[in-house]
Amino acid sequence: MKYELYYWPEIQGRGEYVRLALEEADAAYVDVARAAGGMAAMMRMMEASSGTPPFAPPFLKAGKLVIGQTANILFYLGGRHGLAPKAEGARLWVHQLQLTIADLVQEIHDTHHPLGSSLYYEDQKAAAKRRTEEFWKQRVPKFTGYFEGLLRDGGSAYLTGRRVTYVDLSLFQIVAGLRYAFPNRMGGFERKIPGLVGLHDRVAARPNIKAYLASERRIAFNEDGIFRHYKALDA
Amino acid sequence: MKYELYYWPEIQGRGEYVRLALEEADAAYVDVARAAGGMAAMMRMMEASSGTPPFAPPFLKAGKLVIGQTANILFYLGGRHGLAPKAEGARLWVHQLQLTIADLVQEIHDTHHPLGSSLYYEDQKAAAKRRTEEFWKQRVPKFTGYFEGLLRDGGSAYLTGRRVTYVDLSLFQIVAGLRYAFPNRMGGFERKIPGLVGLHDRVAARPNIKAYLASERRIAFNEDGIFRHYKALDA
Repeated sequence: MKYELYYWPEIQGRGEYVRLALEEADAAYVDVARAAGGMAAMMRMMEASSGTPPFAPPFLKAGKLVIGQTANILFYLGGRHGLAPKAEGARLWVHQLQLTIADLVQEIHDTHHPLGSSLYYEDQKAAAKRRTEEFWKQRVPKFTGYFEGLLRDGGSAYLTGRRVTYVDLSLFQIVAGLRYAFPNRMGGFERKIPGLVGLHDRVAARPNIKAYLASERRIAFNEDGIFRHYKALDA
Repeated sequence: MKYELYYWPEIQGRGEYVRLALEEADAAYVDVARAAGGMAAMMRMMEASSGTPPFAPPFLKAGKLVIGQTANILFYLGGRHGLAPKAEGARLWVHQLQLTIADLVQEIHDTHHPLGSSLYYEDQKAAAKRRTEEFWKQRVPKFTGYFEGLLRDGGSAYLTGRRVTYVDLSLFQIVAGLRYAFPNRMGGFERKIPGLVGLHDRVAARPNIKAYLASERRIAFNEDGIFRHYKALDA
């Protein structure tokens, strides 16, 4: 079975957490909307009035299943490709960590769009500056401090032990994305999160991830995604 | 086994989605932080450096498990108390719907706190007005239209069929909360969402939910929770 991933074709966005898992697992998949006619196919899936139409991309077609919501897709893939533990409690724990990352991703998005996704960044620049200040003062230390503590107390190569999970792949993306969006702020902040920086490097060096990052399948960061580099927000 | 629910004692907030599920299931539970010494107990759990310390309330202690993230708790409870289907695909689908509700809840919160949770509402009132306008113009129609469509196409009493799931309980809370926070706006809007209003009424009439809503266990809506009534935002 070949998976079909449906996501906006020109950004990493939330689809990237799924791509990283599929790539690490060496799973066969098509990134549907990046192929000819793919966007129309994606739209048809979303407008379906029967079955399980997703609210928004990303969603994954896996045989007969159509699974939406990033963390839900990872929960499904994790169990099938050894990217999550098998025991119920441990599976829920890894999923819980992914949901916490999802909250962080939403807050990262809102740094540049605090007043609404339907308005241009340029029309909410002043609000974006204030939100970004709060984000870096309050939220970045809280979120990264949480994961940093788990890494320290766990004392293993990866967040939940010696084996990589989809949560580690997602944290790699968080570090990479913050570096892209806020090079100046991250420059000063990284010494406070040695655990996460080390984790980022270990994930980046994994053969399948390394090959993926060097390939054309990895879309470059840009100013249409979640992580956007705006100089005014990185002062 | 008696569940222990840990959540802020003076608001419905995100804990309410879990309370509604526990109440509908007639499950034995303690709302820990509402009892004497409970807040200190909750703080100790969050500062634990071993096991699975949650990032934030709500979290549920179920025997040896400590489960955080609202949708994750409901996923766990749903499987145990007949509040979700058993088949894998259907379970993932119900979870996916709950995650979409979680996104909506975050957006509702951000109507009054668009610039950050750590700032007072009074210090972000102008931004809150703009965000609320966008929310009602773009997001409320999109989210409610999605669920309204599922209800219409499903043609059953509840969102995924004849049996109630935790998603129905959560949608009840969404309708009740929007009515509290935005009585004026909702007054004009409700005729567009007959399916959701009917669902709200069916859930409210279920014996266990009805008894819960009439009890002291149901905390009243107030201006510290997710759904806040601010006249300036309900113009």
